[in-house]
Amino acid sequence: MEAEQANNPFYFGTDAGLRREYHEQKACMLLTSRDLGDAPSAPDGSSCEVDSEPDSVPPLVQGKYYNLCLLDDRSKPHTARFCGYPTYVFKALCTEDIPAYALRRVDGFRLTNFDLAQSALERWSRLPPHPSVVAIRQAFATQDFFTYQRDREHSLSRRQSSNGSAQPSHIPRSLSTEGGSLVFVYDYHANAATMEACHFQGQGPVREGVLWSYIVQIVLALRHIHAAGMAARVIDPTKILVSYRNRVRLNCVGLLDALKVDPSRSVRDYQMQDLISLGRLVLALACGTLEVLADIPKTMDQIFMKMDLSMELRNLVVMLLSKPVGAYPSVHDIAGAISGRIATQMEAALHVGDCFEEELKKEVDNGRLVRLLSKIGSIVDRPSCGSDHNWAETGDRYVVKLFRDYLFHQVDEESRPVLDIGHIADSLAKVTKAD
Amino acid sequence: MEAEQANNPFYFGTDAGLRREYHEQKACMLLTSRDLGDAPSAPDGSSCEVDSEPDSVPPLVQGKYYNLCLLDDRSKPHTARFCGYPTYVFKALCTEDIPAYALRRVDGFRLTNFDLAQSALERWSRLPPHPSVVAIRQAFATQDFFTYQRDREHSLSRRQSSNGSAQPSHIPRSLSTEGGSLVFVYDYHANAATMEACHFQGQGPVREGVLWSYIVQIVLALRHIHAAGMAARVIDPTKILVSYRNRVRLNCVGLLDALKVDPSRSVRDYQMQDLISLGRLVLALACGTLEVLADIPKTMDQIFMKMDLSMELRNLVVMLLSKPVGAYPSVHDIAGAISGRIATQMEAALHVGDCFEEELKKEVDNGRLVRLLSKIGSIVDRPSCGSDHNWAETGDRYVVKLFRDYLFHQVDEESRPVLDIGHIADSLAKVTKAD
Repeated sequence: MEAEQANNPFYFGTDAGLRREYHEQKACMLLTSRDLGDAPSAPDGSSCEVDSEPDSVPPLVQGKYYNLCLLDDRSKPHTARFCGYPTYVFKALCTEDIPAYALRRVDGFRLTNFDLAQSALERWSRLPPHPSVVAIRQAFATQDFFTYQRDREHSLSRRQSSNGSAQPSHIPRSLSTEGGSLVFVYDYHANAATMEACHFQGQGPVREGVLWSYIVQIVLALRHIHAAGMAARVIDPTKILVSYRNRVRLNCVGLLDALKVDPSRSVRDYQMQDLISLGRLVLALACGTLEVLADIPKTMDQIFMKMDLSMELRNLVVMLLSKPVGAYPSVHDIAGAISGRIATQMEAALHVGDCFEEELKKEVDNGRLVRLLSKIGSIVDRPSCGSDHNWAETGDRYVVKLFRDYLFHQVDEESRPVLDIGHIADSLAKVTKAD
Repeated sequence: MEAEQANNPFYFGTDAGLRREYHEQKACMLLTSRDLGDAPSAPDGSSCEVDSEPDSVPPLVQGKYYNLCLLDDRSKPHTARFCGYPTYVFKALCTEDIPAYALRRVDGFRLTNFDLAQSALERWSRLPPHPSVVAIRQAFATQDFFTYQRDREHSLSRRQSSNGSAQPSHIPRSLSTEGGSLVFVYDYHANAATMEACHFQGQGPVREGVLWSYIVQIVLALRHIHAAGMAARVIDPTKILVSYRNRVRLNCVGLLDALKVDPSRSVRDYQMQDLISLGRLVLALACGTLEVLADIPKTMDQIFMKMDLSMELRNLVVMLLSKPVGAYPSVHDIAGAISGRIATQMEAALHVGDCFEEELKKEVDNGRLVRLLSKIGSIVDRPSCGSDHNWAETGDRYVVKLFRDYLFHQVDEESRPVLDIGHIADSLAKVTKAD
């Protein structure tokens, strides 16, 4: 049953499932470092670094990001996360607007290289938004993290000195590091997981239906990026976010353009690399493990070609991974080759949109009703305000009280109290001064 | 500004626009024949037929459809609506479930031909649902309409006879008609209009962005139908429904299969006819009038090719309308030829889905809050129930009253009443017994 749902691009889930999703996402949005710090520590928690302590991030970064909460998998070394640079990713709120953001911080970055980052940011900001690319919002270089940590370690060591247990080794480590962090600000997608966490921790091979959904979305994103004369450079299980209903989004776009550009390679080379990486990713997903990438020709022959997969999928992987006779295909060639699958996924996307619309239609009036009921409730029955005529049982607000009684105090034919939500909704629908 | 929005497949509209949409749709759902009958009559209202009087439809059809409301454009003769058969389309509610349905009634249908209808229905019911095809739910032959109308005319004529103004000419007309109506039941899409009403009543040429949205959705629907070995046979401005955000749906599928099948033509012929009709439709939409179809070669040369349209659109129309050297292309060939446009439309569909999801997230808790506030309101302050201890100021329900006061009767530091929706929502979120 569940397998069938996962394979069916038209499966939308239940009403209750949707509500659970949103509550999970809301919980993720509200999560703070302190919540994570309160959780029971890992088995090797004793050797915990200073960074992962709940209050080791500054309360405010760049003057507007606050409530930073580390999202990284703490069991991995920082250096393994991004091209050898120590990186961290935080969820943060912003003083200027409502949504949460993901702050990706790269340490050990020479601030003199900031021009490279700036030009990468500019190019990526000009790219129109795409539903399968996590939007990039800002990039800045900051010393906030280091200043905060240095101050903190200073005060810690001073306290420890006064306790007679000085550990001066801490301070040089921090101070010897270069003082700058580069921070890229992306949209935060609540409760999304990396493809690595979803599929490469022993979950087994991915079903073909899901695979096509991933492939089509990634190809659309690459098509969009390549058409703008850029390359994604993030087709990697650790950089692709998966969320509900198999939606995928390319994360961290532009970051590598800011950190490491090999002048001997053209954009075309990087674009080709995107497609080869896609081929490797599809192969690994179909086989269910990243280990098969160690010897691709052997995997293709002995595992992939013997799996029960459609001809189209096999051809796609061959097209992406083999050395072509002529020119290596462009992403447009790939999109053309899988146009039938794109059409199917478009049908699924239309269907999901229709389902969301149906759900929304059911809920659309409720916000107004809540505001209206809150206003009525706040006006009536305030005996403490009785000295003011307006609030008294004879004043203007008394009419509202009568309406409130009419709304809620219905009785059946034997004068027993009844609860009639239909009557309440119907009566409130006729009130026009709600918003 | 508006033009730009219409051309942009990613344009979603505003929050307020969405709410207005849903209220319009709700109004359409609730509309009854009586509402339409109350509207001022047309200039030629004096010659109004009996059918268009509000109560000329039976109160119940096939034992479960009620509240029938004629949706047809009353200014046109019935016979012009569908292949020469007099047809009517009604919105109806069903006693068995909640959504509204569209009942398409065909008169003058020989009940002995019902086998043809039955087999058409069976084939179309097996077709999996598609977001761009209006789903068919049921087909039945009924005498309800005729019996009702005959009875009504009888009683009318009897009343008129007793008034001394008999008009016996009415009765023979009805009775001479064959007694059966064939009714096809489709999903009802509130506030959708036919493409004819949207674009062929002097609105001028359709912009290319909108055209591609239509083309892609129709091609997807045809691809789905043709792959199942059937033909749509409804690619016609009067049979395609347009609703918000350029969503189109093929309407009346299967009806022609039930009414008129030419044994000398194969399914392949009908499928080819679908694509030719699509070509004609696109040409007419691009030119903004159906008149251009009278002389297609001239239109192509003198109007269409001189318009400011993309090469892709021109090629598509040529591909659909010209006699090919080899075989006429299949819908899969067409889909392959416009795969780039399909990809763009898929991005738009994903984006619209994301937007709906964002809106839904904002509203998702409000339904629960409304129910909760209604329950609290119905419990507290019922002095009329005072004789029962449970309802008294000391009983169980008094705790709820205290909570109600805590919710609504907050004051500021100077004891002035304040309305704090945040406090109300926050406090209610902590109540678990809501549903």
